[in-house]
Amino acid sequence: MNRTGTASAPADLSRLCIHTATTRPWTVEEAAARYAAAGVKGITVWRSALEGRDAAVTGRLIRDSGLSVVSLCRGGFFPADTAEGRARAIDENRACIDEAAALGAPLIVLVCGAVPGQSLAESRRQIADGIAAVLPHASAAGVKLAIEPLHPMYADARSAVNTLGQARALCREMPSPWLGVAIDVYHTWWDDRLEEEIAACGREGILFAFHICDWRTPTVDMLEDRGLRG
Amino acid sequence: MNRTGTASAPADLSRLCIHTATTRPWTVEEAAARYAAAGVKGITVWRSALEGRDAAVTGRLIRDSGLSVVSLCRGGFFPADTAEGRARAIDENRACIDEAAALGAPLIVLVCGAVPGQSLAESRRQIADGIAAVLPHASAAGVKLAIEPLHPMYADARSAVNTLGQARALCREMPSPWLGVAIDVYHTWWDDRLEEEIAACGREGILFAFHICDWRTPTVDMLEDRGLRG
Repeated sequence: MNRTGTASAPADLSRLCIHTATTRPWTVEEAAARYAAAGVKGITVWRSALEGRDAAVTGRLIRDSGLSVVSLCRGGFFPADTAEGRARAIDENRACIDEAAALGAPLIVLVCGAVPGQSLAESRRQIADGIAAVLPHASAAGVKLAIEPLHPMYADARSAVNTLGQARALCREMPSPWLGVAIDVYHTWWDDRLEEEIAACGREGILFAFHICDWRTPTVDMLEDRGLRG
Repeated sequence: MNRTGTASAPADLSRLCIHTATTRPWTVEEAAARYAAAGVKGITVWRSALEGRDAAVTGRLIRDSGLSVVSLCRGGFFPADTAEGRARAIDENRACIDEAAALGAPLIVLVCGAVPGQSLAESRRQIADGIAAVLPHASAAGVKLAIEPLHPMYADARSAVNTLGQARALCREMPSPWLGVAIDVYHTWWDDRLEEEIAACGREGILFAFHICDWRTPTVDMLEDRGLRG
């Protein structure tokens, strides 16, 4: 928590939120108890951590331990190479919004998706169409959607949205108080336009979430070799 | 060579150039003989392939086999965390320019470099300073320098120039007929601004080289897992 290594003052963790994916293999119940014991006040729930659970019950349990649910992670994955696939993705995102509402999560992080072999332009169009299709449901449920740009090394199969500039352009295309961006420095640190884009997101009121995570040199696995914090 | 898989017409290889790094472990002599036998007319020489050789002699041998030397790869790596390190990099780039001139290579590809732990802004400033320092030597030797943007997954240690937009901005900062860009689709394919940037480079006369290379899904090694062509 303290990058300088000094022990002079206890860190203020009251605004820190930890993602359950960071503390795998803890269950969501175990994570909530341990984060709370450490003085952390926020939790982001990986959707798979809710499997076999009633989201509303889990949400109450989390709040009872003194934590706020900051977000549900993740929605998205809109592109598909068939119309049926794209319709299924939209249904799945509506279900994710319902789950967030039941959990009491005010925000869903969107990992937007991409289809290998399909042009990025096409995947990007399908992402915009998918978000437009689910945005009314999000607004009705009172759940915000945060587009998270992913590192360009994931543009083939995980997200065709790879810069904060692209994410912000999507928000400008569909202006809504329910649509914004989630910035993960792991995905965006290399971008020479990052500072000005963060400032623009701040001005436009669309900066919904910020995730801190180190990049390792060398990185030996493109998915599982993140540095602290995860 | 033929992406459609049809065999109707022999491919025209007269404008194709192959990089010796693609056909490791062949020596430069072996590569020249085999490329020529296959009807390829151009060769890019990896600098390490010249070790222990007289560049002028190797250049003659390549031309005698019917090939043109398209470029010498690579110069660059300008950033360093000490002034001595940066001065050494500039000396090394001047030596690389002399080697290109002796070889008869009209072009050097620049992999610009980055220092892990140093800010990207600082590395980027040192890259601009380094190029400015060697550009007069390149011009005097009649050797062009081509800035190659590298994929953002290499921004930590290999190059802080990660988009064609950044490379083009450097060229605009130091306008010279001896400074341009080399585009490798492996490094740039993910960029939503790629098409307009390529068009702008064309208009500005700075598009010096184009490298074709596939991205694999999944990519299992960040350095050594390129698809065809290498």
